[in-house]
This record gives sequence, structure tokens and C-alpha cells, in this order.
Amino acid sequence: MSPPSVPMRAAGEPYRALTHEPGTKSIVVIDQRQLPHALVHRTIDDAEGAADAIRSMVVRGAPLIGAVGAYALALALDRNPSDAALFTAHAMLDATRPTAVNLRWALDRVRARVATLPNDVRANAAWQEADAIFAEDVAMNAALGEHGLRMLRTLATKHAGPLNVMTHCNAGALATCGFGTATAPLFLAHAQNIPLHVWVSETRPRMQGANLTAWELRQHGIPHTLVVDSASGLLMRRGDVDVVIVGADRVAANGDVCNKIGTYEKALAARDNDVPFWVALPSPTIDWSLDAGDRIPIEARGADEVLQIAGRVDDGTTARVAIATEDTPAINFAFDVTPVRLVSLYVTERGIANDARSLQALHREGA
Amino acid sequence: MSPPSVPMRAAGEPYRALTHEPGTKSIVVIDQRQLPHALVHRTIDDAEGAADAIRSMVVRGAPLIGAVGAYALALALDRNPSDAALFTAHAMLDATRPTAVNLRWALDRVRARVATLPNDVRANAAWQEADAIFAEDVAMNAALGEHGLRMLRTLATKHAGPLNVMTHCNAGALATCGFGTATAPLFLAHAQNIPLHVWVSETRPRMQGANLTAWELRQHGIPHTLVVDSASGLLMRRGDVDVVIVGADRVAANGDVCNKIGTYEKALAARDNDVPFWVALPSPTIDWSLDAGDRIPIEARGADEVLQIAGRVDDGTTARVAIATEDTPAINFAFDVTPVRLVSLYVTERGIANDARSLQALHREGA
Repeated sequence: MSPPSVPMRAAGEPYRALTHEPGTKSIVVIDQRQLPHALVHRTIDDAEGAADAIRSMVVRGAPLIGAVGAYALALALDRNPSDAALFTAHAMLDATRPTAVNLRWALDRVRARVATLPNDVRANAAWQEADAIFAEDVAMNAALGEHGLRMLRTLATKHAGPLNVMTHCNAGALATCGFGTATAPLFLAHAQNIPLHVWVSETRPRMQGANLTAWELRQHGIPHTLVVDSASGLLMRRGDVDVVIVGADRVAANGDVCNKIGTYEKALAARDNDVPFWVALPSPTIDWSLDAGDRIPIEARGADEVLQIAGRVDDGTTARVAIATEDTPAINFAFDVTPVRLVSLYVTERGIANDARSLQALHREGA
Repeated sequence: MSPPSVPMRAAGEPYRALTHEPGTKSIVVIDQRQLPHALVHRTIDDAEGAADAIRSMVVRGAPLIGAVGAYALALALDRNPSDAALFTAHAMLDATRPTAVNLRWALDRVRARVATLPNDVRANAAWQEADAIFAEDVAMNAALGEHGLRMLRTLATKHAGPLNVMTHCNAGALATCGFGTATAPLFLAHAQNIPLHVWVSETRPRMQGANLTAWELRQHGIPHTLVVDSASGLLMRRGDVDVVIVGADRVAANGDVCNKIGTYEKALAARDNDVPFWVALPSPTIDWSLDAGDRIPIEARGADEVLQIAGRVDDGTTARVAIATEDTPAINFAFDVTPVRLVSLYVTERGIANDARSLQALHREGA
């Protein structure tokens, strides 16, 4: 797997959702709730702070919260390397968000790494394991980006003018340790002068498309247009979308894809208009223990995310506006499930899979 | 056709999107941009004011803007009954919004009524014609409500617990002169104690579901839950939706339905989950001159509606918040087209149609 070849620029400077300086006992993350209006970094130096950051969505994105969770266990073991502390920290972190499987995967991996070690070396081993998870995620982003690039290039050769790609939510650098899952092929294609235009679906309720993906594409200079989530169907009917690429929070063994709410409707619109629908994922996103997507727990978040919208007001400060009366009943499921039959292909770090069987063939034997 | 049997309550008082007191030379409308936070009425006493109200969405909804357009021509003829003034006012009003065909239909109808009359009786005839359009819309709402009620009752008898209805945007009393199109069967069913629960899709970008439909349902005491537009697919997959009912801005002769952006995706999700998808419309919404929905002009509104969201802030004032940087490119198509193959039935004032042929049989001969 090759190292990432595309820098993460923000006003000319690299940006990374998560960094751990070797030898330090803390991590630094971008506070994603403040984008696109401000690029603010936060230092996290205890497990409770990491749990808060995941819970409150300072950090989000399946691969990223996995890595933050791994570092959080190292932070916890720094304070107290006992079995009891390990158990408590694991449980606390695992409870922060239920849907993305990467978090549980990373927590289990660090715990397995340290569980049989003497207490005095546990913290150090946990830091090493978290660093390894980070480095592997960077490499997986790069590898799946190359595989996706190959597929994009094939599409582009059949096509006059820029390739119109639609994405949903943010499966970018801000969702990972590297340069993203769904966005990785886009960054690579753009760097290789394949002309692109990206339809950014705003992604209610939290607006990760508008707040994060549009911001990232702008940093890279990739042409893009923001639309409301509901516009996807019309754009596909008009022939204005050549491919849809999304990330995933958890993929079941049968290939069903759990991802941000609204992904399923994009997949339906893509199928109805013969638009390829691609899911980009690193292998830790696959949950082999679940035989179907309908068994994936769907996080229900607070109604306030539906009833109020945060943004910047004219004076430069941030405000929340209510779009309904405050006692309006609202339900806020954060994810939905796209059945395997609607997925054209899976872009993974080990290659391209056309269906669940080939996804298993690529990943399960080696797992 | 029976008169409406359901009062439009707002805090116990009737509300009407549009009123014309007989003998007066003005109309009164609800300023819908201020709902749900404030119920503010505005008096309109010239055609320019009416055009502004339509353009700026003080009033919206296909049947309502038709009636307001009709009254606006009467207002124009009050000032100047000449052919030139009639031509100018018709053109100005017709240009306010392109997609809903009811506006053009109502303007043409008033113009045809007065064109051959002497100038001195034109204004009076125009007021009469506008009043007739208003009264007919009230009666059509009631009649299509009764037909829809019959279909709802059939669904309800096969069903334990409340009937879960999903709607999109606002096809309620606020979109018409009476008690709505898609909502008419709901208000009647609720009045007859058929247990209902309504999923209200918020309807980005302008939030007519959150701002208007949730408010109307609350006035009537009908249980409802607000969701983001993208949640529709998940809710249908979970089995939580028994029927989708939407209105229409224009229906082509082949049965294709142009309605608020996002309607097409709901229809796709309904089809994928065997949920009936109903379109409620009065006959002036049908455009017999167009043989397919893809020929309907789709209004593209300002990018600011995507980039900024209006709502109430904590101090009770209204603000707009930016959800992306102000120079983010955005496109804002207001409507999409749902192909006839995805429509389960059409609820009209003349009865129920299962397909385009039965829609034509009900309406075209008698037109």
C-alpha cells in the first residue's frame, strides 16, 4: 500500500482530522462542529475528553472515531493500567455511538493487545497499537483511493466533459486518519487532472455535506455544487450524475450498507436512473457477525438536531435557529440501510468487489 | 360537492390562507414566511403587491397562488381596465413562478372572462370570477377530501393502531383556499375519529413541512412527527409508513407528477417497500397540453435558500444562519418529476384514478 500522495490543504496548510505527535500523551483533533466557519484544533488528554468528543461529534466518521477510541484507551491506561480501568474505559467509549462498527473494532483490538501484558507496559503498548491503527487507516485510504481511481478513470474515458460525482455526508479526510474513503478516489483523480465536478448533498440534520465535504473539496480546488438532499433524484433523472460514491458506517456480511440517513434514497434514485452506486470502505467497517443490515443498530439522536439548525449569522457569531415550534415531536435516526441489491460495487483497500460474495472473497479469508 | 366540514383552527380560531370580504377591493393573506412562529395577516390591494407576495412566497401552494393571481388581475383592472393593462398584469403575474400550472390557468380564466367585456364592467367581472375560482377550490378540496377519506378508511380497516401517513412539503389549507389537497382526507379522517399519525417531511430548502404542515396538524390536534427529508426511506423500510400522500404543482397528461423537490425520492422509497403512493390534486393542476412530466419547467430559485436557513433564535427574533461559506456554489431546483409508473392513485375532486387513462376519463371529457 502506497503512502497518501495528496496533501490535505486548508488555506494552503495541511489539515488532519487527528494527529498524535510521537512521544506525547495527547492527541489533537479538529473541532468539526466549527467548520466550515472556523478551523479550530482541540487537544485531548484523557479518555473522558475523547468520549465527549465522540459523543458530541467534535469528531465523527466511522474510521476516525475508531482511531480516536483507540487513543482514548491509551489515555485511560496512562492514568490507570488495571483490568478494571481497562474494562471501564472500554465500556464508556463503546457506548458513545452505536452504529459505526469501527469504534468497537478498534477498542477490541487495543484491549486484546494489552489484556495479557503486565500493567506497567500496557499504556505504551496501547499507544503503539493506536498508532498502528492510525497508520493502517492512512494506508487503507490510499489503497482504496487507488482502486477507486482506476474505476473512475474507466468511467471518465467513456465520458465527455467533467465526471459528475455525487456524494453524501462526509466520507472525506475529516472522517478518517488519511484522506478519506469516498473522497479518496476523487482527490487522486483531481491530482491526476481527471476533470471532476462533485454534487455535495447537504446531509440534514447535521449538514456534514455542507459543513465538511464542501469545505474539503474547496481546500483541494475540486469544483463542486451544494444541493439539498432531496435534489438527488431530480439530478439523476436529468442525467447530471455519472456516479454516486458514499462511505459506510457498517457493512453486514451480506453486503447491506449502513450509512448516513438518506443514503438508501440515493441508492434507489441511482438504480432507477442506471447510475452506478459505489460504496467506499476500509475492511474494519465490515461486521462479519451480522448476516443482514437490518440487524445493525440505528442510532437515534436528539430531536433538537431536527428542530434547530446551527450556522453563522451576519455578525460572524454562531447561532441556532428553530425551524419548528420547540414542542414539535421529531425523530432523528442518524443512519439507514441500503440493501446489497442496490450497490454497484464496493471500493476497498484490497480491491473492487461487485457483490457480497466477492467482498467476502477479498476480505474474509484474510481476516 | 359538499362544503368543507372541518374548520381551520389556529389556537381555537379559524385560519384561512386567503380571504376576500365581499364588496372590498383587497384580499387578506397569511404571511407564510412567518409561520410557525407568528400568524401574521397581510392586506394586498394592488397587483404588484400580489405579484410580490407570490414571488417572495408570502403565499405559495399551487391552488393558492392561482386564486391570488386571479384576484390580482381584478386588482389590476380596478386601477386600469384597458387591454394593455390586462396584458401587462397577466404577463407580470404569470412570470412570478413557472412550475405550478394553476397560476396560468387562473390568469387565463379571468382574462377570458373579461376580454370581450366593455372596460367599465371588467373589474367587477374579474372579482366575480376570482370569487368563483376561490369557491370552486374550496369545494374541490372538500370533494377530493371525501374521496381520499374513503380510500383512507379502506386502509384503516386492514390495520391495527393509527394509520401512519407520510406527507411532503405543505399541501394543506395553507396551500389552497379550502382545507388542502393532500391534507384534506387527513382532516376529514381525524374529524371522524380514524386514528392517524402523520410523518412530516421537513422539506428543505424552505422547510414548508416543518414550518407549515406541522403547524397545521397541530392546529387540528392530529398526532405528527417531524423528520428530515432523507429519513423517508428508512421509515418505509421499518414498516412505519402505511401510505404517502402528496400534492402536485402540475400533472402532465400522461400522469407524471411535478411536485416539491424530494417527492420523486419518496415515490421510489414507497415503491421499493410496497407502500401506496397517492397524489391529491384538483383538476386545474392537470396540464393537458404536456404529454410528459419532463417537459414541465422546473423553477430554479436562489442559492441563498440552500446556503442559509431562516428560523427563530432564542430571543424570539428571526435570523438566517449560513450552513456553508457564502461563496459555496449551490443549485436550488424547487420541484422534481415523479413518473406515472410510481403513482398508486390520484385523488381528485371527481373521484379516484388508478392511472393516467382513468385520470383522463374522469377529467378530460368534462373539461
